[in-house]
Order: sequence, then structure tokens, then C-alpha cells
Amino acid sequence: MIRTIGVADIEDLARGAAVLGTGGGGDPYIGGLLAAQAIREHGDVTVVTLNEVPDDALVLTVAMMGAPTVMVEKLPSLDEVTAPVHGLATYLGRPVTHIACAEVGGVNSTIPIAAAAALGLPLLDADGMGRAFPELQMVLPTLYGITASPLAFSDEKGNIGVLQTVDNTWTERIARVACVEMGCSVMISGFRMSGSQSREALVPGSLTRCIEIGRGIAAARREKADAVARTVELLGGREIFAGKVVDVHRATTTGFARGRARIDGGEAQLTLSFQNEHLIAEADGTTLATTPDLIIVLEHDSGEPITTEGLRYGQRVRVLAAPSDERWHTTAALAMVGPRYFGYDFPPHRFDGTPEVIAAAEAVA
Amino acid sequence: MIRTIGVADIEDLARGAAVLGTGGGGDPYIGGLLAAQAIREHGDVTVVTLNEVPDDALVLTVAMMGAPTVMVEKLPSLDEVTAPVHGLATYLGRPVTHIACAEVGGVNSTIPIAAAAALGLPLLDADGMGRAFPELQMVLPTLYGITASPLAFSDEKGNIGVLQTVDNTWTERIARVACVEMGCSVMISGFRMSGSQSREALVPGSLTRCIEIGRGIAAARREKADAVARTVELLGGREIFAGKVVDVHRATTTGFARGRARIDGGEAQLTLSFQNEHLIAEADGTTLATTPDLIIVLEHDSGEPITTEGLRYGQRVRVLAAPSDERWHTTAALAMVGPRYFGYDFPPHRFDGTPEVIAAAEAVA
Repeated sequence: MIRTIGVADIEDLARGAAVLGTGGGGDPYIGGLLAAQAIREHGDVTVVTLNEVPDDALVLTVAMMGAPTVMVEKLPSLDEVTAPVHGLATYLGRPVTHIACAEVGGVNSTIPIAAAAALGLPLLDADGMGRAFPELQMVLPTLYGITASPLAFSDEKGNIGVLQTVDNTWTERIARVACVEMGCSVMISGFRMSGSQSREALVPGSLTRCIEIGRGIAAARREKADAVARTVELLGGREIFAGKVVDVHRATTTGFARGRARIDGGEAQLTLSFQNEHLIAEADGTTLATTPDLIIVLEHDSGEPITTEGLRYGQRVRVLAAPSDERWHTTAALAMVGPRYFGYDFPPHRFDGTPEVIAAAEAVA
Repeated sequence: MIRTIGVADIEDLARGAAVLGTGGGGDPYIGGLLAAQAIREHGDVTVVTLNEVPDDALVLTVAMMGAPTVMVEKLPSLDEVTAPVHGLATYLGRPVTHIACAEVGGVNSTIPIAAAAALGLPLLDADGMGRAFPELQMVLPTLYGITASPLAFSDEKGNIGVLQTVDNTWTERIARVACVEMGCSVMISGFRMSGSQSREALVPGSLTRCIEIGRGIAAARREKADAVARTVELLGGREIFAGKVVDVHRATTTGFARGRARIDGGEAQLTLSFQNEHLIAEADGTTLATTPDLIIVLEHDSGEPITTEGLRYGQRVRVLAAPSDERWHTTAALAMVGPRYFGYDFPPHRFDGTPEVIAAAEAVA
């Protein structure tokens, strides 16, 4: 269990976050740069567990919204990262006490570290998903009735907005079009929670888990052991495919990086479909795993995670599937983040390849 | 000079506003319905002149943003009209003292009346343009350094947003995409001004002028006189064309009603280009008038103003050109609302057909 995050922790944490980020969340190296800079300027970040947060805390999530492909060319400043928190604190008329991660994923695990350092606030060892998802309402807090709004969004030019919407999907819709107009990458802060609410709605231990995974990969490499196998073990998942990337289709549309990648394994071909994150893995007509479980692409030998925008022709990769937080498998959760929501007309499958029980019931109905 | 606005004034005021609205601002009848309902429920609206506003007043403009073509089918409620003012008052932490019109035009002259009635606040006998323009930053206050933001926008579902932007063009850009996402019609409130600022930046006497023009047309009809000629006289303008509408192209794109209308006058043809408002009048290669001066289409005999969305094949119309507020003819103003800004590659012409002197100087450069 981690108690602080210093510059030396960033590389492992960002690598582990990129694994759990299932291809989304942006380049972990870029997010890491920003967090390291903030820690150098403002000191190490204090990490508190969900059990330690006072009931009456005022927790806010901080994240980047937009297409990670854009952020590679448009690195945010520390002022930009803290702007939506300041904007929201003014709007709420109460000081913020804790920062939390909305998701796990390269940039969106390290931006909250940068924000916590720059603001001098403790960071929760937790996040809103235990993985990454492309749309703002797709967090466990939504399922617990926590509103995304008031939500603040800001850009590098100094523009800032605060939304108060009727539900979290409307926050997503309005913030998304604003994000696209503002250059496809904005900083957001919202999902105001008390300490008690955060205990109920967040995934505990996410930052510790990221560092463990990141360190595991680094240690396996030092020991000349199989880094991918080590990761499979840490995730409690399975390796579903190995091969060479032979085709990548990618387009940045309506603020998302959407696409498909084909991986040639000799005897079979794997197709990965993604929208910021990998959502579907199928090989020759068989569904191997789907959202909400985790589909992860790692470099074949080093075990280094590869983001969807990092996929290139000729890369030798291994693909893992791993379980998500169990709360993602309820009917309400599957309606929000299952394959059908993303436009794929087939039932969700767990990481071990079995169809969701709930999906079977729905097929009968 | 008017001192109050009651239900009996609405019809004349809305008709006059539709004349000065140069085809934009939406259906005056629909805007009138809303104002009349508000006055019936809350009493007459007190009108104050710019000279009477206290220096330390907190003046806010209220308006509808979006495509008037949409509003015909989606009439706002009184709660929707007052929501952005309440939202902004909360954000500012100070009570609003006066309501003002951002522009003159069917809906946007009557919505502030509805808001003032429902909020129990006095309304300024003034507006931000002396006409109507399609984009939010296109008001004289922008030229006087008054910021559109903080600007609140709200829809009929209960969604509300507050923007704080780096300039008024960014307010327009972000509010416009939000407006489109929210159904192409939102209520906005912004351009916070003190009493002294409103005296400097607004056009005085607009509501009185609207009522005078509306009454003039009604009186001319009663007297079997020429209502169009009466309007020309009241505006200090000229009649530039008469004929039959033979062609109307119209598309609602990116939140605006854009299009072109052709009017056949027998010997010549007039082409009107519009984006919510009429912007260019040209006949057989000759520019008769352009924005920022006023181009107004009236029904041939009754003198009733016709909005751009009300233009229909076969209508017999007369077209007027009239001078705008002189402050619209500076270099900065013409850069903001001249024909080139709207994508027409020729110099601005005054209502009397003469090229702008400033445009001639720019042509040499």
C-alpha cells in the first residue's frame, strides 16, 4: 500500500495505469512528465486510502477529456490542470479537500497526481472505474447516483465553463461538444463526492495496484522472466492471443479515437475494436472478451503496454483479457458500458470467454 | 417615450422589432405570446431610460440563442427564460437590478420583456445593437470592452451552463456548439454591465422606437395609407426594391438559418443573402446595401415585416435599406460584422448604396 507518490514512483505507476487503461487514457510517458514536474515543484503527493477519508470530505475527480491522439501534441500546463478545480471550488463556495482519479489510464492516472501536487491536496488511492472508458458518465459513481455536475472544463487558452445538467449523460454530451470546439482536449473536474460516498462508489487501491503492475513488469525484465506472464498473474487474467499487428484503422471523430486493429497469429487472426479503449476482441468469429472486462495489448517481449494510438504495423504483441470490478456486470452497468452501447450487436462476454449470464437472460426476453 | 409595457403594447412592439430585426430574431408572434403571458401573470414591466439607470446597477442581457426556425416548434417556458439569469446571479453572488435586450428582433425583443416581468425587474429602453445579428459577440458592448462572460445558457430540460472565456468570440464558439447539442435553441444571459457602462455601450430608446414603428404600420393601414412608405420615413431609409419572391434556399447549419432569396421585380432581380438576418442586397451585379446597415423585407401592401424563415415563393414584397447605429461603421465594427466576416468577398455598402469610406481605404492597402 502506497502512502506517498514521489518522482521515482511515476514511471511504474504510469506503466501500470497504461496496462489497466486497456489502450486508452493517452500516452503514459506524457502524463508522467506532467506529474513529475508537479512533484518537483510542489513536493511528494500524500496518498490516503478510502477508509481514511473523513465522511464530510469534499472529493473532486480531475481528468483530461478528449482524444488522446491530440494530447500527444498538446501537453497541458499545471495551470491548465488546476483551473477546473479552482473554477469548481469558486462555484461550490467550499474548499476541496481531496482529489481522486476518475479512471485508470496513462494520462488520467497521472494528471490527478499533478493536480494534487500543485493544489497541495491529498490524493485518494482509488478511482471511478478500475479501468478506462471513453465517455464521462461511464464511472461507477453514476451507478450510485452521484452527479457529474457541477462539472468544470477548461482549456489552455484560459476558457472555462461550469455545467449543471439533469443527468450525467447530458454532462457528457455538452462537455464533449465544448471539448471538440476547444481543440479536442480539455481538463475537467466534477463528480463531487463526500468521503462516505467515495467509499461506496469508487474502486479502492487503484494507485497501489498500478504501481504493483508497473513494478512487476520492470522486475520481470530485470530477472529475464516473462513480463507478460507476470502481468497475467497480477491481473488474475489470461493471455488470449499473440501475433503481429497487420492492419490498423483509426479516425479521430466527435472527440474520440475510434478504430480497429487486426493481429495475425499465423493460424488465426484477432480483431480488436476500440473507442479510445479496446472494447471487443474476436478471433475468427469467436468472441474472446468484451467490455466491461479488460482487453490489454502488451509488447511481445518487454511486456510494455501499447495504447490504441501507439499500435503500429509490424508490432509483435500479446493480448490479455482480465476481469473488471464486479460492479460492472450488473444490468444497469452493462446498459451503460456493454458492447451494445458502443454499437456492437452481440452480447457481452467475460474475460474468460463465457457470455455474461445477464446477457443470456436478456436474449430470452 | 414609453414608461411601462403592458399586454396591449406587445403587438406593436413585436412588429416594430421584427422590422428592425432585418429578418432575424424569430417569429414576432411567438415571442409576443410569451411576453403577454408573463405580463398577465406578473404585471406590466417598468421601462427605464439609459439616463435613469444608477451608475452601480447590475444589468444583464437576456436572449434566445439558436436557429429561429427551431424556436417556432419549441416555445420556451417562463422558467426557461429566467433560468440563465438565476444561474448567473448565483455565480456572481450579487442580485441583478436591470434586464436589457441584446438585440432588436422578434423574439429577442420580447423574451427580455418576459424575463423582466417574471423576475420583477425593470427593463432598459435600449439594446446592444439597434438591429439583430446572428452571433453572440456582435454587439456594441464588445467594442466597448464589455465581456459576454460570465454567460449562462439553459435549455427546457433543465440543463444549465456558465462560461468564463478569454474573449467574446470564444463565448460564441462554445455556447454555439452547446446550443446545437441542446436542441438548437437555448436561453442565454450575460454581458454583465454597470449602469455607466450600459449608457456608453447600448443603443438608447430601442423599445420606444420599436413601438413607434409598429404603431406607425398599424396606423397607416387604418388610414389606408402606404405602410411601407411610413416605415421608410420612420427609419430614415429608402425603398430599394419591389417584386415577387421566386426562389428561397434555406438550410439550418451549425446552429444558424443560412440562405438566399431571389426576388423578381420584372426588369431586375434582387438577391438577398442571409444568416438569420439579411446581410446583403444586390441587384444584377450592383450592391444596394450590406450589413451593418439594415435590409428589411416587408409584405407589399400591409407593410408587415417578413422574417427570413417566413419567406415563401410567390410573396409580393418591398425591400428597404436603412442606416444602422453610426458606431457600426468604425473599422473594428466592420471587421466584426461587415460582409467579409460572413464570407462575402466585397466591400460594405451603406444603406444609400455608397461604399463605406473605410472599405475604400482598406481596398487600397
